[in-house]
Amino acid sequence: MIAALAGGVGAAKFLECLVPLIEPGDLTIVCNTGDDMTLWGLYLSPDVDIILYTLAGIVDPVKGWGVRGDTFNTLAMMRQYGLPDWFNLGDRDLATHIYRTALRHTGKTPSEITETLRRGLGVIARVLPMTDDPFETHVLTDSGRMHFQEYLVQRRALDTVQEVIYHTPLGARPAPGVLEAIAQADGVILCPSNPLASIGPILSLAGVRDHLCATPAPVLAISPIVGGKTLKGPADRMMAGIGLETSARQVAFLYQDFLDIFVLDQTDADLQGDIEALGVSVLVTDTIMNTPEKKTDLAKVVLRALND
Amino acid sequence: MIAALAGGVGAAKFLECLVPLIEPGDLTIVCNTGDDMTLWGLYLSPDVDIILYTLAGIVDPVKGWGVRGDTFNTLAMMRQYGLPDWFNLGDRDLATHIYRTALRHTGKTPSEITETLRRGLGVIARVLPMTDDPFETHVLTDSGRMHFQEYLVQRRALDTVQEVIYHTPLGARPAPGVLEAIAQADGVILCPSNPLASIGPILSLAGVRDHLCATPAPVLAISPIVGGKTLKGPADRMMAGIGLETSARQVAFLYQDFLDIFVLDQTDADLQGDIEALGVSVLVTDTIMNTPEKKTDLAKVVLRALND
Repeated sequence: MIAALAGGVGAAKFLECLVPLIEPGDLTIVCNTGDDMTLWGLYLSPDVDIILYTLAGIVDPVKGWGVRGDTFNTLAMMRQYGLPDWFNLGDRDLATHIYRTALRHTGKTPSEITETLRRGLGVIARVLPMTDDPFETHVLTDSGRMHFQEYLVQRRALDTVQEVIYHTPLGARPAPGVLEAIAQADGVILCPSNPLASIGPILSLAGVRDHLCATPAPVLAISPIVGGKTLKGPADRMMAGIGLETSARQVAFLYQDFLDIFVLDQTDADLQGDIEALGVSVLVTDTIMNTPEKKTDLAKVVLRALND
Repeated sequence: MIAALAGGVGAAKFLECLVPLIEPGDLTIVCNTGDDMTLWGLYLSPDVDIILYTLAGIVDPVKGWGVRGDTFNTLAMMRQYGLPDWFNLGDRDLATHIYRTALRHTGKTPSEITETLRRGLGVIARVLPMTDDPFETHVLTDSGRMHFQEYLVQRRALDTVQEVIYHTPLGARPAPGVLEAIAQADGVILCPSNPLASIGPILSLAGVRDHLCATPAPVLAISPIVGGKTLKGPADRMMAGIGLETSARQVAFLYQDFLDIFVLDQTDADLQGDIEALGVSVLVTDTIMNTPEKKTDLAKVVLRALND
């Protein structure tokens, strides 16, 4: 059994190639929900949906989110009504949000809803939202404090981030099964996701870090930073903004208290020594998942490392 | 000022041609809401939407409901989730339902919401839902009691209707402005809509019938029954099912306590004497709105009759 901590697109691309290599059902994915938001009265859970759509084989392969071949006609009409139109919701995608919202209004938890959606989409892997409690990732920027989606999508990540804030007004506990999945896993994978906006929220939940430290199973992370940059998303700018070095080494440093293995892109081979000095094993390989073969190769390398 | 009591498609076709003939804003439309329902947690108000879309010039001209050129991709995805797919909701249309639902959840009344949608769609005529209170038109059939939409859309009006029930668990009052619109009108029009399922619900609201009886202004109805049949919809079958004669004469009889003028299709010219015997003036004309010219002619005849 493998447990994976996941954000959105980067994680989904990796997990898509991991799944065919393991026994069906041998994977529990813990998804970031700090990006969750409401729009037009609908509950959106972008990272959960990206993971579900990708594993269901219906994700838009170019964008990495949304549903392949989707149309955007509800959005066009919302624009006519003068409602917010900055979040690109497709018509098929919208069915998920309407369904989630209807289930929320009947009192179902995010965990229960995710399970219903997973079955509806025919996804085999177990997918857990990181928490059933309200949790919003905010960023404090030179333009003020805002929801992460507002920073990322509405304002195109152009503001300078000064601080990342996990806003949990009522306190947030890990969702049912999250700590158990970590404790029972034969290997834990931190997917190549934003360490501040995707993995960080999961690590902030009570008990998660402790369980990662305590497990005798190997804990492995794949660096989302390659050559000092992210391939996609604002993790590099966010790290720089809050005064961190923009490097794979910095990511390993953020995880060092529980990390056993760090997967480094060959571009960053020169960082191997520094990271090993933190007491972490380093695996140097090609982590840039720009072809199906490379994605599969990365998944194979990771599985081999966990089984060693 | 004209007040019109309206159902869906038949009323909308007539009102579309009435509007260009009168001063902008000189019309208040009171819409049936007995067909309202919730689907996927969304509030639908089919007759209100048909009226708004038609007057906004965006209605699907073939079906008479929904938005012209709409796609049905959310619906397709809902089908994949195994959710009810019998109500044909288009993607653009859905924006209205999502918006309405979001406004409902913020505590807005149907009247306030209809006003917001009206302005959003650029409709000039005043459009009022008949009530802000819960009101469901049910039919008792040989297959049991069901919501009118279930009978009409899901079961294609194939069951025999034995009784029409206006289900108002908390009592339903006319929405703000409805009685005033009738009282202040220089003429009242009952559109060619189903007398049991569209006009009947409006007439059932406390004070509406009294105000129609009391007004010195002419009250005119256009027969939705031509040659013993409806052109569209199940009004004829419903009337037969509950033991009423399926005729224009029967419609006039249902309205006789307040009716001044009844507009009869030339097919039914032989009923003129019977209806005049009820103390109602009869206007015989071509009421079948199958060309733009005929629709406009009907609207002109009606306006002339109200002004005489």
